[in-house]
Amino acid sequence: MTRLLEENRVRLLDGLRDALAGSSSLSRIVRQHVGIEDAAGGAVDGAGKLLRPSLVLFVAEELGARLDEALPAAVALELVHNFSLVHDDIQDRDRTRRGRPTVWVTHGEAMAINAGDLLYAIAFREIARCGSAAVACLAEATIDMVEGQSLDLSFERRFVTIDEYTAMIDRKTGALLRCAFELGAIVAGADDSARRALRDLAMALGRAFQIQDDVLGIWGDGDVVGKPQGSDVRRRKKSFPVASAFALAGPADRCRLEEIYSAEPVAETDVTWVILLMERLGVPAAAAGTVRETLAQAAGYLGRIQLSATGRGDMDALIDYLAGRTK
Amino acid sequence: MTRLLEENRVRLLDGLRDALAGSSSLSRIVRQHVGIEDAAGGAVDGAGKLLRPSLVLFVAEELGARLDEALPAAVALELVHNFSLVHDDIQDRDRTRRGRPTVWVTHGEAMAINAGDLLYAIAFREIARCGSAAVACLAEATIDMVEGQSLDLSFERRFVTIDEYTAMIDRKTGALLRCAFELGAIVAGADDSARRALRDLAMALGRAFQIQDDVLGIWGDGDVVGKPQGSDVRRRKKSFPVASAFALAGPADRCRLEEIYSAEPVAETDVTWVILLMERLGVPAAAAGTVRETLAQAAGYLGRIQLSATGRGDMDALIDYLAGRTK
Repeated sequence: MTRLLEENRVRLLDGLRDALAGSSSLSRIVRQHVGIEDAAGGAVDGAGKLLRPSLVLFVAEELGARLDEALPAAVALELVHNFSLVHDDIQDRDRTRRGRPTVWVTHGEAMAINAGDLLYAIAFREIARCGSAAVACLAEATIDMVEGQSLDLSFERRFVTIDEYTAMIDRKTGALLRCAFELGAIVAGADDSARRALRDLAMALGRAFQIQDDVLGIWGDGDVVGKPQGSDVRRRKKSFPVASAFALAGPADRCRLEEIYSAEPVAETDVTWVILLMERLGVPAAAAGTVRETLAQAAGYLGRIQLSATGRGDMDALIDYLAGRTK
Repeated sequence: MTRLLEENRVRLLDGLRDALAGSSSLSRIVRQHVGIEDAAGGAVDGAGKLLRPSLVLFVAEELGARLDEALPAAVALELVHNFSLVHDDIQDRDRTRRGRPTVWVTHGEAMAINAGDLLYAIAFREIARCGSAAVACLAEATIDMVEGQSLDLSFERRFVTIDEYTAMIDRKTGALLRCAFELGAIVAGADDSARRALRDLAMALGRAFQIQDDVLGIWGDGDVVGKPQGSDVRRRKKSFPVASAFALAGPADRCRLEEIYSAEPVAETDVTWVILLMERLGVPAAAAGTVRETLAQAAGYLGRIQLSATGRGDMDALIDYLAGRTK
């Protein structure tokens, strides 16, 4: 992990604990999901990377805000991210998350819908402390994210081009990352041009992050990534490698791909065939190339933003981390 | 309907249309659910009573705000109410709502979760225009509502006392009604004591409204209420009449009640038996008495609030309407 992700971790975990305090059984469920409490009620740290809230604090501090002014925004963003995970897991029928059973598996679907809804509402209670502009920014990002998720669900029924894929991830996963940078800027009272530069940077980082994530969903080491190799093929996820394979394949392979992606469940021999096809078509190299190009763009945008020497080092390290991350 | 519910209806429908404008298929789904658009994309008015947003505008105007200042808050509250209906319908497996198929029936569960999430996010984008205090108020009310829904879900597995029932409805349905009054006060810049008086009034109105709703869910005329007579018994809903019957019943009847409420599906002969038991125990009269008492309390709280002569007439009419409503 990079320094940017480590520096404020304890502060963020404390902020999450304060925001999610409560004695109801629903509040216990959300604390366990977020990864700050175990089933026995003890404090733990299973909260994942905390990338988005770390970025809020990083940007806010770089642009001159105090960390305590930015904390509610950082916490709120992480809560919105977590609400989306709870609801996505129901929709995608995912059974594990961060090495733990998902909320709907443990508590049933109805309670999982509720748990997501609670996280969502608490997020907006927290962000209200940062003023209306921050609220509007988080709401707009959430709208984008939900629309992106809806696009992704609609992709389950058809193949998509790389452009359609990109438009989807820019909303589904890009929106909250852009929001992280913008919230930092808003809390610090930055001007519009700084906000624009940060948005461009965030958009590029978001794409690189998601494509890398998609690659790991197929070729990642199961033990490290937390899900078995090939799992995104098994669940027929419309990821960058699939869009890319579909674009590059000849008519016969394309036909076979369509056949496999319309069968349920996908046979293990077909999973292997798809992965081999992708490798034969050079998809891993194409994906790595796109990630590299996108991060180079990001480095360009970074040049337009005033950062401290340490700040620039932190962002460079983050870019390197995203370029090479294995989990 | 009372004048209070009719006066600003067109304005509210326009506000909802503006807030929900958009070309995505998800935004079409939410417009249809809210009842402002038909399947062919034409404008319709199937939006229900619009009680909560009408109250926001009423209170705001009575306390001196301009209607256009209060409109985003009113629209936001109606959107939060609608998000909760979409998610509740999934959880309760309800197949119709306002005479139309529910979102999950038409578009599947995954898309229905998303549709609710979109309404939720748009609500907070709208309320942001009314300032941080309004955002915090709506977020707190939403937290209460979601916690109340979670309590209600937990009641599915056991019988509850009337006190437990009351604590649940104060949150599940009372929270948004209180929020309606408070948002009106916030937009108008009212002081804390006015807010407190309005909260008390809203709490009483909310209880009366919900108990009346529970009565209609069992004895209401199917054609008027939009669901068949006895339907809340059939779906084993833990409503005021059930809590009340359970409190009043002797050991043998209580045993039989427990048996019936743990069977699925509930047999039609048992539905009839439960309704007859309730009538034998005097539940309808007890419910009517509680509604009457609660509305008398409401009338008392109303005396603490400064209203115009027309405003007082409107509130009195609303109380009469709630006391006698058949749908």
